[in-house]
Amino acid sequence: MTPPVECIEFYFDFSSPYGYLASEKIDDLAARFGRKVKWRPILLGVVFKQTGAAPLTLVPLKGEYSLHDFSRSARFLDVPYKHPETFPLNTMHAARAYYWLHEQDCARARAFAHSVYRACFAEGRDISQPDVVLELAARQGADRATLSAALNSQALKERLKAECDAALGKGVFGSPYIIVDGEPFFGADRLPQIERWLASGGF
Amino acid sequence: MTPPVECIEFYFDFSSPYGYLASEKIDDLAARFGRKVKWRPILLGVVFKQTGAAPLTLVPLKGEYSLHDFSRSARFLDVPYKHPETFPLNTMHAARAYYWLHEQDCARARAFAHSVYRACFAEGRDISQPDVVLELAARQGADRATLSAALNSQALKERLKAECDAALGKGVFGSPYIIVDGEPFFGADRLPQIERWLASGGF
Repeated sequence: MTPPVECIEFYFDFSSPYGYLASEKIDDLAARFGRKVKWRPILLGVVFKQTGAAPLTLVPLKGEYSLHDFSRSARFLDVPYKHPETFPLNTMHAARAYYWLHEQDCARARAFAHSVYRACFAEGRDISQPDVVLELAARQGADRATLSAALNSQALKERLKAECDAALGKGVFGSPYIIVDGEPFFGADRLPQIERWLASGGF
Repeated sequence: MTPPVECIEFYFDFSSPYGYLASEKIDDLAARFGRKVKWRPILLGVVFKQTGAAPLTLVPLKGEYSLHDFSRSARFLDVPYKHPETFPLNTMHAARAYYWLHEQDCARARAFAHSVYRACFAEGRDISQPDVVLELAARQGADRATLSAALNSQALKERLKAECDAALGKGVFGSPYIIVDGEPFFGADRLPQIERWLASGGF
């Protein structure tokens, strides 16, 4: 009997430019090999407390390069890109809304995640704002008032915290961080390695 | 009249695993587009003082992943790889010897640089040791006694310092850092972008 095929795990922060680039590619890539992807938004702020890392754009020299590389890598991957005016930005509300939607309907949560990333990195929206998050969730059928109340509920806070802790426990230190059958890949630039891994079952 | 074609600039530290991977590919890649490469070893220690960065393997969580990714990326690029027993390591002598050789003969300096990288990342040699550096330089025809004296000369110290300062002035913050007609690319994983850049004159 063939064992059930594990989902590819896709960890990301909604404020991560390279996470956004990976988000536009990972489902199609997985589907080409008959695989599905489990999306797991996390908060890089929580992760960076463990690693001592800082947001890329705040690192001397590397910051300026990164801004340039975000756009160029987007063109390379044929993904629209417009760097957010406010950056870095807080993605707590977006991540909480994702998990709230996910408990009701995985497909809507996925569509919501895409819409958040595109709002942030292609449409110039400020996704740190609860109003923007609620609007995007409402487009996926969420009841705005119910979600608005839930965003500050203890249950949802704890759910996101548990997801971040679980990610740290798996060694996630940045975004995107993609795990294929236990094999970890960090960065949108590892997509070609992921493709070969899926094609050959390792290399 | 066609303007003279600029060299591609390849900045690296001899202790950089991803620099080593790029070193095995960059000349052939450039040659496919009729281009030459100027190799410029630097000391990441000097650069990291500006950026506050630490060697990858010393960063919590990221360190363990990096060790795994060095080997996997080497297999992906079909380059032999054996992680050095001592790491990070001091590459001051190797970089100084490179510039000493380079003043006499560019081609021998290039061959020496390849041999240093392969000694470090494929053959298990400790290239932080002056004796190892002298042995590798002697194989390229260097007079061992003359180079040994030169390694601690003020002139050679200043040459390497000037190269590191010049690199910082160009925005170099890590290794490998490759500049193609003013366009900067950081990391061995940017080789596909470099290839497209060379093929199309930008994208």
